[in-house]
Amino acid sequence: MRGLVLAAGLGTRFKSEKPKVLYPILGKPMVWYAVSALEDAGIKEIALVVSDVSREVMNLLGNNYRYFMQSNPKGGTADAVISALDFWRDYDGYLLVINGDTPAVKASTLKSMVRYLNLVKEYEGVRLSALLLSSFLPDPTGYGRVIKDEKGNVIKVVEEKDASAEEKLVNEINGGVYLFYCPHLLEVIFHIKPSRMTGELYLTEVFHLMYQKGYVVRSFMAEDPSEIMGVNDRWDLAVVENVLRLRILQKWAKEGNTVHQPESVYIEPDVKLEGDVEIEALVSLKGNTVLKRGCKVGKGSVIENSILEENVVVEPYSVIKNSHIKKGAIVGPFAHVRDNSVIGEASHIGNFVEVKKSSIGKEVKAKHLAYIGDAFVGDLTNIGAGVVFANYDGKRKYETYVGKGAFIGSNSLLIAPIKLGDYSYVAGGSVINKNVEEGDLAIGRARMRVIKGKGKEKLLDDQLKER
Amino acid sequence: MRGLVLAAGLGTRFKSEKPKVLYPILGKPMVWYAVSALEDAGIKEIALVVSDVSREVMNLLGNNYRYFMQSNPKGGTADAVISALDFWRDYDGYLLVINGDTPAVKASTLKSMVRYLNLVKEYEGVRLSALLLSSFLPDPTGYGRVIKDEKGNVIKVVEEKDASAEEKLVNEINGGVYLFYCPHLLEVIFHIKPSRMTGELYLTEVFHLMYQKGYVVRSFMAEDPSEIMGVNDRWDLAVVENVLRLRILQKWAKEGNTVHQPESVYIEPDVKLEGDVEIEALVSLKGNTVLKRGCKVGKGSVIENSILEENVVVEPYSVIKNSHIKKGAIVGPFAHVRDNSVIGEASHIGNFVEVKKSSIGKEVKAKHLAYIGDAFVGDLTNIGAGVVFANYDGKRKYETYVGKGAFIGSNSLLIAPIKLGDYSYVAGGSVINKNVEEGDLAIGRARMRVIKGKGKEKLLDDQLKER
Amino acid sequence: MRGLVLAAGLGTRFKSEKPKVLYPILGKPMVWYAVSALEDAGIKEIALVVSDVSREVMNLLGNNYRYFMQSNPKGGTADAVISALDFWRDYDGYLLVINGDTPAVKASTLKSMVRYLNLVKEYEGVRLSALLLSSFLPDPTGYGRVIKDEKGNVIKVVEEKDASAEEKLVNEINGGVYLFYCPHLLEVIFHIKPSRMTGELYLTEVFHLMYQKGYVVRSFMAEDPSEIMGVNDRWDLAVVENVLRLRILQKWAKEGNTVHQPESVYIEPDVKLEGDVEIEALVSLKGNTVLKRGCKVGKGSVIENSILEENVVVEPYSVIKNSHIKKGAIVGPFAHVRDNSVIGEASHIGNFVEVKKSSIGKEVKAKHLAYIGDAFVGDLTNIGAGVVFANYDGKRKYETYVGKGAFIGSNSLLIAPIKLGDYSYVAGGSVINKNVEEGDLAIGRARMRVIKGKGKEKLLDDQLKER
Repeated sequence: MRGLVLAAGLGTRFKSEKPKVLYPILGKPMVWYAVSALEDAGIKEIALVVSDVSREVMNLLGNNYRYFMQSNPKGGTADAVISALDFWRDYDGYLLVINGDTPAVKASTLKSMVRYLNLVKEYEGVRLSALLLSSFLPDPTGYGRVIKDEKGNVIKVVEEKDASAEEKLVNEINGGVYLFYCPHLLEVIFHIKPSRMTGELYLTEVFHLMYQKGYVVRSFMAEDPSEIMGVNDRWDLAVVENVLRLRILQKWAKEGNTVHQPESVYIEPDVKLEGDVEIEALVSLKGNTVLKRGCKVGKGSVIENSILEENVVVEPYSVIKNSHIKKGAIVGPFAHVRDNSVIGEASHIGNFVEVKKSSIGKEVKAKHLAYIGDAFVGDLTNIGAGVVFANYDGKRKYETYVGKGAFIGSNSLLIAPIKLGDYSYVAGGSVINKNVEEGDLAIGRARMRVIKGKGKEKLLDDQLKER
Repeated sequence: MRGLVLAAGLGTRFKSEKPKVLYPILGKPMVWYAVSALEDAGIKEIALVVSDVSREVMNLLGNNYRYFMQSNPKGGTADAVISALDFWRDYDGYLLVINGDTPAVKASTLKSMVRYLNLVKEYEGVRLSALLLSSFLPDPTGYGRVIKDEKGNVIKVVEEKDASAEEKLVNEINGGVYLFYCPHLLEVIFHIKPSRMTGELYLTEVFHLMYQKGYVVRSFMAEDPSEIMGVNDRWDLAVVENVLRLRILQKWAKEGNTVHQPESVYIEPDVKLEGDVEIEALVSLKGNTVLKRGCKVGKGSVIENSILEENVVVEPYSVIKNSHIKKGAIVGPFAHVRDNSVIGEASHIGNFVEVKKSSIGKEVKAKHLAYIGDAFVGDLTNIGAGVVFANYDGKRKYETYVGKGAFIGSNSLLIAPIKLGDYSYVAGGSVINKNVEEGDLAIGRARMRVIKGKGKEKLLDDQLKER
Repeated sequence: MRGLVLAAGLGTRFKSEKPKVLYPILGKPMVWYAVSALEDAGIKEIALVVSDVSREVMNLLGNNYRYFMQSNPKGGTADAVISALDFWRDYDGYLLVINGDTPAVKASTLKSMVRYLNLVKEYEGVRLSALLLSSFLPDPTGYGRVIKDEKGNVIKVVEEKDASAEEKLVNEINGGVYLFYCPHLLEVIFHIKPSRMTGELYLTEVFHLMYQKGYVVRSFMAEDPSEIMGVNDRWDLAVVENVLRLRILQKWAKEGNTVHQPESVYIEPDVKLEGDVEIEALVSLKGNTVLKRGCKVGKGSVIENSILEENVVVEPYSVIKNSHIKKGAIVGPFAHVRDNSVIGEASHIGNFVEVKKSSIGKEVKAKHLAYIGDAFVGDLTNIGAGVVFANYDGKRKYETYVGKGAFIGSNSLLIAPIKLGDYSYVAGGSVINKNVEEGDLAIGRARMRVIKGKGKEKLLDDQLKER
């Protein structure tokens, strides 16, 4: 079995210069889904037909696949398959052809198609020339209809515009996924005539040509009509993204994770939940994120390419990117952790705190309004509200080291490069620009003065009025 | 063609003193939708019937329309139309009557009704006395049924409570939008008898009176049953807001913008997306917002009455109001830009930063925890974490000017009114209360002192214990 | 009438050590819903069957109910009812048996079942031995079918796996809620034979045993098929949470509150909205929260166990926990109020401000980037941007008192314990570590110095280049 993905078109209804098969769905380019379905169905040899407008596909998907160039991206689907002639001409087996813009087809459905093929061979003694995926729609308007004879064999697929009144009543529609027996495909594909309307060569013409030669073509019904959704415009894109999104959510829920308001939650395909994870509404989990047992992610948080160890709690509206949060740590609400930061066990990064490219030890607290950038912070250290790690002097970035058990008083400024020893103590409101050794107290603030009665003068009359 | 909008009722099921037609749907009062549909259908002369409880309608919609006062807001729909007698009594044409609480009727449907009217005239030679919008519902319980004779002409509209068992089986329901030929309406409207139940004069009575005179009344089926939704309580309000919201989202997607999880996205009617815009889940776009090509708006952000130029990136959970973001700028996550602020090209306003009534130049960076209020900031300037522009002294607000290429160190305070020249440099942790000239360094912080061994004393035993 | 809730199972498809009936739905354990439905239906005597794995149910629900222990949690539903034999053996009345994992059954449906029972008694003279709740599903696959005789009496309930081809066509399914006449139940329950497949005793076997004795069993159709949803895995949990959530939202909307995008809003059962409240999308209201008339809660905000008085405005993305917000106050956007804080009338807590365990007076302003912890703040006081109330010295927490009409300049630090008198004034950028008396001005910052030309030196060439 070989697989061929048609990915040459631009997709004019996307109104963009980017080819539509590269538009992301849950963070993966659309074409990735068709390719993955083939792979998950066990197909090892996969090729793609691309064109000048879609050559970027090759960079994105890489070297595991063969690529064929369709010189005329408006040549039609049969022309695309012909472009890949070298891939299947001499192959005495089946070619699975799938459009790059049908991302919702399931691997299990492809496997069932192959199984059906084999069953027909075994029990009916018939080698199918083609098997096409179809679905039944209550309102088939706009779709190609699958026309069959009294034995249930496919006579042809007819487009809406070419369909007779009687054919229009048929509600079995063509799903755009085909298995072809290559020698038979080769016999007929060059007999397709260009469409009078568009000049394109339509691959769906082969079924009638096969029928005329006495070859047997069957259709196979998709388990779920959403599988055969083609993506023609960006509304379709949104709808199919929702279909795929809900499949992922249902899978994680069934595997023992709690997901609240799943219709609002976004989880990309490469994310892993290890069980007993709780996800609140509106959460996004992206990239290679892993959530270990017992994690809880609060409302609206966004986690990307990050690892959350056991029992981490992310409070609402936090953003974590490319970071590692260790066991039992608490992040948020309204926290931002990014750029390869590590948050140690049982530490607490609180509201309006940003941690960038920093390694934070165990049981550290930085609970309010702080910026910690390019730093190492030892275990048990306390970082007050309003503390800033100044890592940039207008020219370069520098690093800060804070030992364990230290106390950084509120509104202090640590000017990097700087090193504060274990158990050092920075008085609130200090500017620290020299190293502090272990156990020392550093203070850098002006003495407070009072000017009697002067405060009242400076205030608004309004503020002074008694109530 | 003239249009009459019935907007006199209070809507008791809204349980409010505000008339229900003024409740906002996507930021516009409900009655605006009926009026807009009439306008978009090409109707130039529009009047509204209001009452004492709903006179606020006049202020909201302004002087482009005529207003008639219904003295008894409980007089019924026919009484409302009679209140506007001067608007249509002498008019030898059609009057389109629509309830102010049916905001989902499409202008295209109204146009189709008019087209149908003309076709009937042309091909059947019949001048319809009335044409009413209807829909078919699988379960019509609760709605007024459209009863027709064998020719398909309307005999009457009968309310649920007055319907016979046979009439109850009819599932064509009345949609509350009517075209009346004015001379015929005038002949019958004064013959309506008050309801025995409520004392009201129901406009739907005219159809049977017309039928009895031998006049022809037809019904016209709405393309989409959601169009004829009347809004009776606030649950209906939520449902119809969703219907209108999704229409807007579908339009923008089809015009070449990517919208993720559209069921969660909120876009008001006056917003414009210029194409190739990407909108993440949960975003709200309000008022007269314009998003130019290539903009990307991250999850949950709220943008109101603002312009985002080409390729602006708004990171998640940012709020932008009444502001202008120039090309390629980055805002957020967790940023708040408001009050006629301008963010210059390629500038970056980062997390937990508020910009209020300020003009920010090109390539400015203010990436963390800062408040910039009432300021002008020149190109290329860098504003550190924790910087505050103190614009208020307890009595008045003052302005700050920072030149280009300046550097404001972290945790500094700039006390307005103040001016910092080009390439000036403020050391971190400084309080700046005097102007700084071009290229000068300003520093205002206490010298740091160290007290040996004193830090350790001040710490919790807990913090000191080895692990 | 007595009520028995079966809550002994673990729920293996939840893949957890916590019994599934304790999983929260809208913040309440699943079993709470069945118990509440019984109570709301007027049933005073309620017992639960628990097991070793679910004994935590007793702690959660408390002493208002009787508990019976099922020694073998895999004994089956009939064994569970037998475990509670002492509760119903001698009772000459009806026992309502409900599974603890059917949280969507409405009290009104239970009441209707009882009413039906009485009507049958009165008009047919028949005392029903059992009445079971059922529903009609277009696709009943997987559910137990209700098999009836020609009179409409129930012959038996047959599980999918035991159903004949003919029985599988029946689409009336068993809803898992039963009324039993106790003397008749007692006659048959010990005759149930263990399932050959699982060894369990199935309660549904009693219907056929009753039928064989000539007793009359009927079924009663649930108003809404969603009522009889059993929760078997965490996807079901998410779906049933949505069903219950939307019921609550619909109720509050119909009672005169505006809810935008209700499918995204989360309101727990104990929350109260007093009318004319406006809730934007994505809001969560939890615990014992009360919103008085005219409150408006902006997008995405989370409010838990808090009281919002009349006309409070919560701007988007704010978190309020265990706090009290007084009339007309404004909170947010991006504000965090927690730990028994009180925000006074018409005060404004703005963006990136955290208020913890503090009492804030009337007309106080703290609009930007501040941390106010363990404090009392008097009326009319103004707290600048970047102000921190330092309440922790590394060992203990201390309190701060600020009088009325005071002004705390931006980026100031108040080091607790400390007291600032009425009309006191703290200059921006000050560190305040001694009390300030009424009307005094306090200042604690270094003098600013300027080093001519030094600023330019410190800057990046890049920043200096002219454009």
